[in-house]
Amino acid sequence: MRVVGPDTIRAAVDEDEIVALIEDGFRRFSAGEADVMAVGHLAFATPPGDCHVKGGYLRGDDLFVVKLASSFYRNPEIGLSSSNGFSVVVSAETGAVLAILDDGGYLTDLRTALTGGIAARLIARPDARVLGIVGSGIQATLQARIVARMLGIETILVWARDLARAATIGQPVELDELAACADVIVTTTPSATPLLTAGMARPGMRIVAVGADSPGKNEIAPGLMARARTVVDSRNQCVDHGDTASAIAAGAIGDDGLIELGELLTSPIAFGDDEIVIADLTGDAIQDVQIAKAIWAKLAA
Amino acid sequence: MRVVGPDTIRAAVDEDEIVALIEDGFRRFSAGEADVMAVGHLAFATPPGDCHVKGGYLRGDDLFVVKLASSFYRNPEIGLSSSNGFSVVVSAETGAVLAILDDGGYLTDLRTALTGGIAARLIARPDARVLGIVGSGIQATLQARIVARMLGIETILVWARDLARAATIGQPVELDELAACADVIVTTTPSATPLLTAGMARPGMRIVAVGADSPGKNEIAPGLMARARTVVDSRNQCVDHGDTASAIAAGAIGDDGLIELGELLTSPIAFGDDEIVIADLTGDAIQDVQIAKAIWAKLAA
Repeated sequence: MRVVGPDTIRAAVDEDEIVALIEDGFRRFSAGEADVMAVGHLAFATPPGDCHVKGGYLRGDDLFVVKLASSFYRNPEIGLSSSNGFSVVVSAETGAVLAILDDGGYLTDLRTALTGGIAARLIARPDARVLGIVGSGIQATLQARIVARMLGIETILVWARDLARAATIGQPVELDELAACADVIVTTTPSATPLLTAGMARPGMRIVAVGADSPGKNEIAPGLMARARTVVDSRNQCVDHGDTASAIAAGAIGDDGLIELGELLTSPIAFGDDEIVIADLTGDAIQDVQIAKAIWAKLAA
Repeated sequence: MRVVGPDTIRAAVDEDEIVALIEDGFRRFSAGEADVMAVGHLAFATPPGDCHVKGGYLRGDDLFVVKLASSFYRNPEIGLSSSNGFSVVVSAETGAVLAILDDGGYLTDLRTALTGGIAARLIARPDARVLGIVGSGIQATLQARIVARMLGIETILVWARDLARAATIGQPVELDELAACADVIVTTTPSATPLLTAGMARPGMRIVAVGADSPGKNEIAPGLMARARTVVDSRNQCVDHGDTASAIAAGAIGDDGLIELGELLTSPIAFGDDEIVIADLTGDAIQDVQIAKAIWAKLAA
């Protein structure tokens, strides 16, 4: 068992390569060529936190990946990162553990942000010029950098409760203003009550929602979801939790119109300029598999 | 993150302490004081293998445990152990990974065998003198040693397809003879078809079934289950897979008479001398939690 530390992992990151692998993973996931485990979840009350365990493989691969990622939201108050975790690369031929990628949650953060970029690129209007970021945590920072780069956008508006931290990411604005002005909005908070409401709907709005990744979290109001076309990373997962599940539970949308990211990658849709499109990303094991494969391929080379 | 190797782990094992912790874990699990994750499972066709990921914690503990264990049944043909895996000890206060117990599957094998001993002690008649082991793999070897020790039994009969390996564990016999003579039988095979049949039933038979731990595996015929009282490690898990699930699916038993191991530990039952009792053990996260805690307590002391 080789343990690979954070510096070595960061040095092995090639974002464009990882994007290509994640896109391939989603295509094959939607084509039924991936096996993923039931997601393991533990919740902690005091201090508040959760842990997700995900794993899977693409059929034909000689390895599989299991990933543990935890978030303890109050860690920053004691000077620690809220994210922790690691990925494990295992031989699919013997079960031997090849490597522990001790990334401290970085690979989860990065694959989530890169997938935000992939989704944004698929749903954004070609003339998108203004990116709006909701939140000011690790994901907000990463999504701002990555989505802006992948869409060639320079103007970044940010709304967050913590104004000082928002200002490190882009230009702080009120949420109403952000909703009215941003061509692409990325929401990254653990909010339990919707931040983007039906009243903020406007033609051509494009939203990538990455914050609501477990039951009970909800960033996008069902009334706004009702006016949008919905793209999901995993149909099975999104009908169970996240913004899509909340909208379905509220009777605002059905589960029949959902478009999987992998389907959209295989068969892109030219959305109408006035259509509202929301990509609801809850995080799928196949992203963890593909980013760990990308890192391991560099290290084992 | 501290990585602890197999030799250090083995040196930290105190079987009696671990038995006490596992018993406490089962009591609290059955009392609703444990949170366990959905079991993650991946299956591999060529070569055949599977991987289970389990995790959980007892409420009030300051750490949680996630365990990965794989079995690739043909590994011995290429000189490798079929078992692989490790346990992770994580702070339930920050999510920080405290230790990887790189046990290569040893802790899973050991906790399974110790739980076999716990179950055997709860269901065996006080006058039990002959132990019967079905199978000749790692579990067969461990169960033979541990159950014999915990029950104070000296005579061990073994049935397995591999006679030479059976002879290293005890006295090789035909399966009919084992079923007729052994006071306590432990079945440890990955068989997909029942080995112990209804025709082998006899008054006072006591069986600990540990082999059938995933859907599709079945060591005990539904017809034999129908004549027995059934103890399960986890009611939720056993109605879904293993010998209990097969018997329920066949209509041989209902799901209402199952006794959980933790309930039996809290309120022991004096089974009648003629009763047939079967303990169906599918392996629960709480065993992994408790054995990892035992090891970590020694190492962190």
